[in-house]
Amino acid sequence: MVRWEPGTAERLQKVALELFATRGYEQTTAAEIAQAVGLTERTFFRHFSDKREVLFQGQELLVQAFLDGIEAAPEDASPFEVVACALRSAATFFPDERRPHSRTRQSVIDRNPALQEREHHKLTTLATTVATALRARGVDDVAATLAAESGATVFGIAFTRWLREERSLADIAAEVLAELLTLAARALRPAR
Amino acid sequence: MVRWEPGTAERLQKVALELFATRGYEQTTAAEIAQAVGLTERTFFRHFSDKREVLFQGQELLVQAFLDGIEAAPEDASPFEVVACALRSAATFFPDERRPHSRTRQSVIDRNPALQEREHHKLTTLATTVATALRARGVDDVAATLAAESGATVFGIAFTRWLREERSLADIAAEVLAELLTLAARALRPAR
Repeated sequence: MVRWEPGTAERLQKVALELFATRGYEQTTAAEIAQAVGLTERTFFRHFSDKREVLFQGQELLVQAFLDGIEAAPEDASPFEVVACALRSAATFFPDERRPHSRTRQSVIDRNPALQEREHHKLTTLATTVATALRARGVDDVAATLAAESGATVFGIAFTRWLREERSLADIAAEVLAELLTLAARALRPAR
Repeated sequence: MVRWEPGTAERLQKVALELFATRGYEQTTAAEIAQAVGLTERTFFRHFSDKREVLFQGQELLVQAFLDGIEAAPEDASPFEVVACALRSAATFFPDERRPHSRTRQSVIDRNPALQEREHHKLTTLATTVATALRARGVDDVAATLAAESGATVFGIAFTRWLREERSLADIAAEVLAELLTLAARALRPAR
């Protein structure tokens, strides 16, 4: 479990998100964010390399949650079973009380194509990292890529639904993964 | 089937690829490309909006090949069966005689992160278009996204293998899709 420690970085992040959501991302400067919590721009840049990082910091923790799930998977788990473990672990990163924050963040990202591209790139990086971890478990190259990419797709769809619904991300992700497996099974049925 | 008509655009494309591969993409200008086939820079820009487009023009034809495959799928085909049709249709876009061209193009893209990003974006757009076409067939939202994203993943993996191997893209894509379905089926087996 990752702790969500309230500190300077979190205060900056919270107020930045409010400013991005109300004034607009482009219209908000790092100096204004710092000022709003009584800090200097210099302090802002001690915590974030740039304004965009306010929205993306902590990504490595999410990736780590996936990797923790992979490590915890039984040794004889199939690639998709490992991915299921990874998704369960990643879901702990988004407890329901984080939904309001995530919704605001998403509304900011949805209004800015460059941020959308960055967010999409996050999923790509995630898939690459998961594939590497699967290969390290002895999964062959193509199977590792297929399972990892599928995991990232399931996570992306589940996360979007989690923002709209009130159920837990773990439940939604399990349901979306099950739907993928069922769809695949339907295509394996004997030809009619 | 898409015809590969030799004309001014194709001559420009061919020589551009040679220059990108030998001198480097960044080091080659539109004027130099035009000059190499005895044309003016102005003529170049009548065929391509910029230098990058030389590498990406025709993408809509590939997307159309996917859509043609979807349209040709039997009405009662399951989402993944429709995706299989789309992949077969898309494979006709890359006959084996196109492999040398595609290999050179890929070597240029592999050496430039911005081009890699653009290439990746192509797959994203493809997935979105395929998902829309599946929804239009009455496939529900999540299933359409899952099948479309899986199709794009399979296409990406198959294409990379096609560049390295000597087998047809249709065969490789069918094999990668079958591997995905088999992996998924393994995860559906009863718990041990």
